Amino acid sequence: MKRKVTLKQIAKELDVSISTVSKSLRNSLEISEDTRQKVQAFAKLYNYKPNNIALSLKNKKTKTICIIIPEIIHHFFATVISGVEHVANENGYNVLVCLSDESFDKEVINMEMLASGSIDGFIMSLSKETQQKKDFHHITEVINQGMPVVMFDRVTNEILCDKIIIDDVHAAYNATQFLIDKGLKKIALITTIDYVSVGKLRTDGYKKALKSNDIDVNENLILKIEDTEDFDNYIEELLLNNEIEAIFAVNELFAVTALKIANKIGKRIPEDISIIGFTDGIISKYSTPSITTVSQNGIKMGGKAAKMLIDRLESEDEEEEQYKTEVIETELVERESTKS
Amino acid sequence: MKRKVTLKQIAKELDVSISTVSKSLRNSLEISEDTRQKVQAFAKLYNYKPNNIALSLKNKKTKTICIIIPEIIHHFFATVISGVEHVANENGYNVLVCLSDESFDKEVINMEMLASGSIDGFIMSLSKETQQKKDFHHITEVINQGMPVVMFDRVTNEILCDKIIIDDVHAAYNATQFLIDKGLKKIALITTIDYVSVGKLRTDGYKKALKSNDIDVNENLILKIEDTEDFDNYIEELLLNNEIEAIFAVNELFAVTALKIANKIGKRIPEDISIIGFTDGIISKYSTPSITTVSQNGIKMGGKAAKMLIDRLESEDEEEEQYKTEVIETELVERESTKS
Repeated sequence: MKRKVTLKQIAKELDVSISTVSKSLRNSLEISEDTRQKVQAFAKLYNYKPNNIALSLKNKKTKTICIIIPEIIHHFFATVISGVEHVANENGYNVLVCLSDESFDKEVINMEMLASGSIDGFIMSLSKETQQKKDFHHITEVINQGMPVVMFDRVTNEILCDKIIIDDVHAAYNATQFLIDKGLKKIALITTIDYVSVGKLRTDGYKKALKSNDIDVNENLILKIEDTEDFDNYIEELLLNNEIEAIFAVNELFAVTALKIANKIGKRIPEDISIIGFTDGIISKYSTPSITTVSQNGIKMGGKAAKMLIDRLESEDEEEEQYKTEVIETELVERESTKS
Repeated sequence: MKRKVTLKQIAKELDVSISTVSKSLRNSLEISEDTRQKVQAFAKLYNYKPNNIALSLKNKKTKTICIIIPEIIHHFFATVISGVEHVANENGYNVLVCLSDESFDKEVINMEMLASGSIDGFIMSLSKETQQKKDFHHITEVINQGMPVVMFDRVTNEILCDKIIIDDVHAAYNATQFLIDKGLKKIALITTIDYVSVGKLRTDGYKKALKSNDIDVNENLILKIEDTEDFDNYIEELLLNNEIEAIFAVNELFAVTALKIANKIGKRIPEDISIIGFTDGIISKYSTPSITTVSQNGIKMGGKAAKMLIDRLESEDEEEEQYKTEVIETELVERESTKS
């Protein structure tokens, strides 16, 4: 069978990045003329046609939308998918799910593949690598082709499109204030490295709450973790080396790991240390003690994202409507891991 | 914009099921001539062409495969997806994920949509409703079109294709025997209703282990749960009305719920009751006490499924190769919820 050459194969063959291939094919001036010519010649030789299907389907609706998520291990993204499915199905749309696996290249490849006529629009949360690179050309390109994109949770100001977010600063502020109101002052933060937008915003909210209560921010109590690393030892060090009264963790896995380690080193939850997590997933609910948490309401977020996308797809108005950013309310679900 | 009429719309308009529409369009003799003619006339009138894209792509490979899973709340399916992604990407394939949401109609719609040229092959686990209806025509149809399908976990003997399964009877037998070897005899089973193939097989393994140890099977100790119902009360009744020494639960959610309820009614785990679950997910790992479990090895299962599908896609041999059924080994992960 005749095989279609892919972006990845071109990149490999010419020893350049997928992003360079993608930009060269669009004749982007970011890429040197030499490279552009080389890529375009190669693509022509091997009959690379990204938009061949799109052309034949130009006036057809597929009634299918795609959601691109960074990973599926965190329960949050599973709940967002459920929300998207529900509202999309109600409105007669099918849903495809793609994983970027936190990889910029996979995000580019997935969008390239599907923007060519297989679907009507995208719902997406940025991969970590994309946030780090700050390279959003693949998204701009899709939007310029006239395909709507709705971003949720991990978004960027550099792209103009509809967005659904929670107010991460506010949510983290409230969680921290909740601990302060219980008389707790030595509050540790377990967060992600700063280029993950939500981690950064939740860190800001934590600091803001401390400051407005005249508590000094102690950088020793702030642990910044790469999600992929084996972080148990870092948390154990944090707990052993400091007289901590409470922990605010920016995701569920950090929260439950802190709880396990506190148990292990003989600290009682919540008598010695109170813990609040973020994202109301199944671990928080079924853990013993169950974990107090900031609920992100993924189902609602997914449902709203689907609604926004479908509204834009079905709008009769050809005039460009103003893009909207909707903020979903969070709530603190009080359970057994915080002092009552 | 001109819209393409969908299977669902035809079904709604003519007040028949999606399956009837799908079969009528294939001229299946299962459907009355009158209905077939009506559906075909309607489809023609509204220009329904399921295979229009497929025709233009007949000789092209998309280098994309699709995995259809019944739901994403159980961590097991998330791990299978990770396994599929990893092996597919290594071999230069993209992966699309579809959810059937345990619905027969959604399974049919998703396969119909994607079999028309968007992908090269399917990996799938059957929805509950499909298993209940025993209607597999949509899968047969895809295979007859020459598109390979690999089934995993929830499979059926009625379809000839490659399959990856675990030996559910054997795994359940081993788990039950493990409890018997600890001197426990009053062993309860928390399982699903019988039409879910894996629930049935695990029940068989449980009974087999009891019998081969001359322990009578007590039907009062077997609780069959609809996955969707609020099952806490049933488990509480089971525990209150019987002097149970151990529980074998066929999934993680049943196991952790049994643990919570045992705690609530003052039974100590594992001193009063030992618990074994099935599926080695994050809940079992992070629960307190952590839960002894039969590990299904979803990552391995997903990886093998992807390998089998890609091997079949890339086989140069035009002769029909014999279909294979691979059995993945399970192992018992011993943790804190069983007597040592």
